[in-house]
Amino acid sequence: MRIAIINIGDELLIGQVVNTNAAWMAEQLNLSGFSVCQITVTGDTREQILMALEEAEKCAEVVLISGGIGPTPDDITKRTLCEYFNTTLVFNDEAYRDIERFFASRGMGVTELNRKQADLPEHCASVPNKNGTARGMWFEKEVSGNRKVIFISMPGVPFEMKAMMTDEIIPRLKKQYKPQAIYHKTILTQGIGESFLAKIIGNWEQNLPENIHLAYLPQPGIVRLRLTGTGTTEKEIKKLVYREALKLRSIIPEYIYGYDDERLEEIIGKLLTERSQTLSTAESCTGGYIAHLITSIPGSSIYFKGGVIAYANEIKESELGVSREKINLYGAVSEEVAREMATGIQHKFHSDYALATSGIAGPTGGTGEKPVGTTWIAIASPGSVSTEKFLFGDDRERNIRRTALQALNMLRKKILSGLT
Amino acid sequence: MRIAIINIGDELLIGQVVNTNAAWMAEQLNLSGFSVCQITVTGDTREQILMALEEAEKCAEVVLISGGIGPTPDDITKRTLCEYFNTTLVFNDEAYRDIERFFASRGMGVTELNRKQADLPEHCASVPNKNGTARGMWFEKEVSGNRKVIFISMPGVPFEMKAMMTDEIIPRLKKQYKPQAIYHKTILTQGIGESFLAKIIGNWEQNLPENIHLAYLPQPGIVRLRLTGTGTTEKEIKKLVYREALKLRSIIPEYIYGYDDERLEEIIGKLLTERSQTLSTAESCTGGYIAHLITSIPGSSIYFKGGVIAYANEIKESELGVSREKINLYGAVSEEVAREMATGIQHKFHSDYALATSGIAGPTGGTGEKPVGTTWIAIASPGSVSTEKFLFGDDRERNIRRTALQALNMLRKKILSGLT
Repeated sequence: MRIAIINIGDELLIGQVVNTNAAWMAEQLNLSGFSVCQITVTGDTREQILMALEEAEKCAEVVLISGGIGPTPDDITKRTLCEYFNTTLVFNDEAYRDIERFFASRGMGVTELNRKQADLPEHCASVPNKNGTARGMWFEKEVSGNRKVIFISMPGVPFEMKAMMTDEIIPRLKKQYKPQAIYHKTILTQGIGESFLAKIIGNWEQNLPENIHLAYLPQPGIVRLRLTGTGTTEKEIKKLVYREALKLRSIIPEYIYGYDDERLEEIIGKLLTERSQTLSTAESCTGGYIAHLITSIPGSSIYFKGGVIAYANEIKESELGVSREKINLYGAVSEEVAREMATGIQHKFHSDYALATSGIAGPTGGTGEKPVGTTWIAIASPGSVSTEKFLFGDDRERNIRRTALQALNMLRKKILSGLT
Repeated sequence: MRIAIINIGDELLIGQVVNTNAAWMAEQLNLSGFSVCQITVTGDTREQILMALEEAEKCAEVVLISGGIGPTPDDITKRTLCEYFNTTLVFNDEAYRDIERFFASRGMGVTELNRKQADLPEHCASVPNKNGTARGMWFEKEVSGNRKVIFISMPGVPFEMKAMMTDEIIPRLKKQYKPQAIYHKTILTQGIGESFLAKIIGNWEQNLPENIHLAYLPQPGIVRLRLTGTGTTEKEIKKLVYREALKLRSIIPEYIYGYDDERLEEIIGKLLTERSQTLSTAESCTGGYIAHLITSIPGSSIYFKGGVIAYANEIKESELGVSREKINLYGAVSEEVAREMATGIQHKFHSDYALATSGIAGPTGGTGEKPVGTTWIAIASPGSVSTEKFLFGDDRERNIRRTALQALNMLRKKILSGLT
């Protein structure tokens, strides 16, 4: 069974909005065992929509449509669908009651414009929208070659579409088409590039069972490895995928920091909370980005005391107690200074752990001895300090991101090592 | 003249990658006076590519294709194009010399796989790729109805495609199709929501000349207003757009912080550099995000001394000199505490300006008196301190972002006011 996606909206054709709906829909369908054969983006124009519908039914058994079903006059998807399926709009009581409830819960009455959203094509099944007033529409059509094609129209507003897909559309499609059982496990790695990783795990990858597939999903600073297994029962596949994930873990234990949707800053938060321990940060080249990641986690005030951003050398001295001699002797980007920054903030803020960064983020400021991308990271625990040097690239944004992820992963290992 | 875009790549159909190429291409074409009628995403499969090409030539005079022209066996666009245009691959000397130069500049020789990239369809003009080894291909085809359609195949790697579009494709299309002269000016506003803005400027908007169009481009914390003018000469349109931008400025001077691609943190950097003045930050609810924005600008070490992230109240006391009495009396999220944080960091870090934030970012921690989203911002200049209270929403990420932009804009105004 093949699925085509049609995203309707002028804003997509002028590049005002990136089509994240398509990627999300395609990913969710894929994760459910369905495959997408084509994605078409079309404007809010009758001819363009009709052409896209015709084209989609040629290659797919299911056509998922998003966008253009709001209450304003430029939303023409609904009446164009009526034309395509040779039907008319009729007032739908159930839909109207939902719209009334939606506005009542916000202390508002239904306007004339929104009342019209209860007009739905006669020959379609309508699909509830728990986050909005535009219902989904489910059409079935016999096409040439004795095939049946299902067309489903959904809102373009991402959180309305996503809830409708998750709660209604995917479960119904699964029931109807019974795709192969499918199971995914994503293994999160940090500290190694995609090509090096591919070399180390190449042998394991080549020996994966035929029904298990590996995808490399690289991002600056991390590489996610997604294992996808397909088969007849979920239980059996899950077992198989877990077995391979365990094998992988035994090959690259030092690079794996988590699974699936976990974030490093979240994992660190859990570890510190479990241990009732605290953290502080002393950042130079990362300029507050690590503290920002840590405090993006709700509840981080329990374990994060705060930090100092020591951009100027005088602040490294006055706030973190780094000795001027060491700065003069070794430079601000050095093992000695990173170490003193970490222990300085740890003592001053009375935290169990502390991390410090000092580097040349770029694009300028490099020297022959210390090129752009040179970075020192220090991690202080209650009883010791570890330091490590890295040579990242010449892109400022990526250097900041990679330094932050590297520092967080070093901290994670330090906490887990149990070595104080 | 209408343009269709075809993006080729299995990674797009499984949702592994968001199709940012399409949005970028569509925006650039639009900004150059061209209009896009359809975007199609298709997999690395012969049949799918052929079907997309056929479909595109029906609605467009120019078809822009990206992806699938790399050196590996799964890149089948080139041979599929040969099939579609009934031509064959021939070795191209010029292309080969470029590939040799590309590898030589990296101290490498040309591999057999990359040598094959010099094989190009006989019936096409090839387009240089300054950032890679896959050349663009420019085909012209007579289609039914006595129409000529141009097909241009480009790499899918974003920075290769973008350079090729900017340096080669758009200039050639402009020369060939001479679109109407077009001019854009984006006015950047902060501190007012889209719907309120629409009300205030509604009268001006309604009276815009027919050939000037306004687009609202909202993002969390800011709204960009893009004026687009079309006409016969650029000089005349530019004048017209400027005139409207000036009118707009006189209606909402307090909300406009900049133009086009400027970023608030960049504007502040320029203002401080011009004045040889310095800045420091004391962040609670924003947790380092403001410092991160400031230090994302290259050269920020000239004016940014650093900051303190005072997440715990004890740090507000010990590092910023906030009095315990005030915290107990007014709470950490209060005008008094924000004020003391700002002056505390200003004096300690010897900076001309300082900013401080204290708020409840959420999702928990709110009270009846101070709900989630309550935020105090303080800006200290050499001679005074301003404070302001905001009530943002209940989304942690958005609250942090909105607080940061608001604080930066308050700082910008303070520096500009010249009031010390």
